[in-house]
Amino acid sequence: MAEQHTVSAFDDEINRLRGLVAEMGGRVELALDEAMQALVKQEPGLAERVIEGDLRVDALEAEVEKLVVQIIALRAPMANDLREVIAALKIVGVIERIGDYAKNIAKRSRQISGHRTIEPISLLPSMAQIAGEMVHDALDAFATRNAVLASAVIERDVLVDNFYNSIFRTLVTYMVENPKTISECAHLLFVAKNIERIGDHATNVAEMVYYAATGEYLPERDRAALAEG
Amino acid sequence: MAEQHTVSAFDDEINRLRGLVAEMGGRVELALDEAMQALVKQEPGLAERVIEGDLRVDALEAEVEKLVVQIIALRAPMANDLREVIAALKIVGVIERIGDYAKNIAKRSRQISGHRTIEPISLLPSMAQIAGEMVHDALDAFATRNAVLASAVIERDVLVDNFYNSIFRTLVTYMVENPKTISECAHLLFVAKNIERIGDHATNVAEMVYYAATGEYLPERDRAALAEG
Repeated sequence: MAEQHTVSAFDDEINRLRGLVAEMGGRVELALDEAMQALVKQEPGLAERVIEGDLRVDALEAEVEKLVVQIIALRAPMANDLREVIAALKIVGVIERIGDYAKNIAKRSRQISGHRTIEPISLLPSMAQIAGEMVHDALDAFATRNAVLASAVIERDVLVDNFYNSIFRTLVTYMVENPKTISECAHLLFVAKNIERIGDHATNVAEMVYYAATGEYLPERDRAALAEG
Repeated sequence: MAEQHTVSAFDDEINRLRGLVAEMGGRVELALDEAMQALVKQEPGLAERVIEGDLRVDALEAEVEKLVVQIIALRAPMANDLREVIAALKIVGVIERIGDYAKNIAKRSRQISGHRTIEPISLLPSMAQIAGEMVHDALDAFATRNAVLASAVIERDVLVDNFYNSIFRTLVTYMVENPKTISECAHLLFVAKNIERIGDHATNVAEMVYYAATGEYLPERDRAALAEG
């Protein structure tokens, strides 16, 4: 009976852990979406909401860390369970950074004036949508321990990278032709880079999910495409 | 006797963990230094070395992860020890990203041609030096559990941020006056941003060290200044 009790307390804690990870994920997805709206539609109120909402994301990360330490210390989970708990700890660190990128986009939306007339801005929302879907699917893969879904996320990162390269070239050309917009375009370059990094981080999460679900690392691929800054 | 044996095996593992963290730290410090030389002096051979060397940094991170899981699973460390082991796991994740930023600078050094004539590039090495020292001191603080040194690292981040803001303005002005250099200057903007992010990450490490050493979080400060992308 005592063991039964322990096992079920462990299950409760794991479920709480999964719930916190899912909540964080949902919040940063929404934050990215709202940050892009704030940028494209020039809605400062929305930007404020994203910036304030990030505090809750940070608090959730701290909550997950405490819970993970508690689970490890009190339950001493083994093998699969330990892998999942460690994966949750690492994944929330990545989600927190994705939230920071969304917040950064929201902040830039306030700094850029008159950018509505800069045509290349219209390319950014489609890029952000793919990156947002990658985040969503990576966390779905974590919640359902779905290694196949995780692999599919990783494959999609190339789309975001291609978008980024195309936007970089378009913006540089635009700056050359419209030197008065250089300062605004430089901010948009960083927005594009932030979205590209969100895709990289979603890929990192998917790799961790794959490992947590299978106990194996994905076949070595070109890590150069990943997490570069 | 058996317990003595266990305790000393635990100490051996903790020392090995600290050694791996220190090795990773030393490698990324060197990588940043060499990447900046590759950029400023146009030395493609040095850039190659940084890019290849990053594979070893990634391998060290994987080694630390395995060791941490092993320590937690076999030794079930408590309180202070558990905090240090978890901190090591999180810190190597951050060091790995600092290594990626250095690699990214090395890669950009190959993409930029003729940038030696772009005067604002001369501001970057001083900025990188401060960021590199922050990384060094943050890891020193971890090795010696020195909360005071960790606090000092955090305070220095404002210098890097000020450098970044100044370089951003200088580069944008330069682009407006020299439209032909816009593409090169855009790459230099990203290099400046990468260095600024290294400062942020050193700050994050210092915060983790402070927590691992004291069991307390630093007083709430403006997190907006941190980790933004």
